[in-house]
Amino acid sequence: MIQLPEVIKNAVEALTRLPGVGEKTAFRMVLSMTSWRAQELETVGAALSGLTRLQVCSECGMFADGHRCSVCADDARSSSRTLCVVESASDLLAIEKSGHFRGLYHILGGVLNPLLGVGPDELGLHKLRDRIMDREMEEVILAVNPSVEGDATCAYVKSILPDNLRIERIGFGVPIGGSLEYLDPMTITKALENRKRF
Amino acid sequence: MIQLPEVIKNAVEALTRLPGVGEKTAFRMVLSMTSWRAQELETVGAALSGLTRLQVCSECGMFADGHRCSVCADDARSSSRTLCVVESASDLLAIEKSGHFRGLYHILGGVLNPLLGVGPDELGLHKLRDRIMDREMEEVILAVNPSVEGDATCAYVKSILPDNLRIERIGFGVPIGGSLEYLDPMTITKALENRKRF
Repeated sequence: MIQLPEVIKNAVEALTRLPGVGEKTAFRMVLSMTSWRAQELETVGAALSGLTRLQVCSECGMFADGHRCSVCADDARSSSRTLCVVESASDLLAIEKSGHFRGLYHILGGVLNPLLGVGPDELGLHKLRDRIMDREMEEVILAVNPSVEGDATCAYVKSILPDNLRIERIGFGVPIGGSLEYLDPMTITKALENRKRF
Repeated sequence: MIQLPEVIKNAVEALTRLPGVGEKTAFRMVLSMTSWRAQELETVGAALSGLTRLQVCSECGMFADGHRCSVCADDARSSSRTLCVVESASDLLAIEKSGHFRGLYHILGGVLNPLLGVGPDELGLHKLRDRIMDREMEEVILAVNPSVEGDATCAYVKSILPDNLRIERIGFGVPIGGSLEYLDPMTITKALENRKRF
């Protein structure tokens, strides 16, 4: 059987680290890359290594070009009194894409998970409380995904915040375009609980 | 809408150049890479840039670590009098994987395509002839894919080789595990033409 050069093996191994890329896909990618110009290969390699220079916003934890992300640096939004708490940068992006939230964000970087050693300190929950108090936030929207850990995280955040603060959790129910027929019992239960006068 | 940092945009753009990777997939990959250690990012970047150092075998055109690939450098194979002509490195690998060919290869790098300006010179067909004559090959297997261009390429190669040389083309017909019911008429026609006494 033919022995492939080390550079090919290295490139295949590198690509299999990407989510959703198995060895066969990585190999197909590398084979196609072998016909690229050197310049293109350098560009791609440099672009991926370049992620090491990625900075995070010192306020909300989102990716940033400098020490503040474009939301926190936005004059129209930086004075907002509404804070949306999310688990991850991708959740933040999903909310931004909906285009209806004009306040500030706070990225937790996960949810409480004692079994994995993720406690309030790891998530910086007291830093979150300080930010809410210092910026005199009036409304905190907990846009944390529904799960046992997510629920516990929301409960903990609520417990360390003053009682008079308006704390809300995003609505759970039937997704738009969804069909009751195919939804799980938990979602249906939530949808029934969260019914609104029509 | 939030503005993403340049490093993220660059990485997404870089990954979309890979075959089968669209913008959404690339973005998902980059988001997951943002949680990698710097060391890992450097490794992946370097592995991809490293493909610029890829060499090709001076004899057959396959990827090589030095100036000869592992097939041409294999003592047991280098004296073979059978040459298998393929279009691409991936076709070569497919044949190697079957494990039944122990001769030498020659990669054309494509097929004749006058409309795209690919003629005998671009494919180095006279270099192929010289190799066949110099190495005193006894058998040439044309493992070129069945297509109008592939057929033309095979016909041209045959026309520039001596009449007494044994030139064969790989068999076409029903693939193993295939079902006549779902095969196209051309394949069925070829399978009938290529029938063998049972």
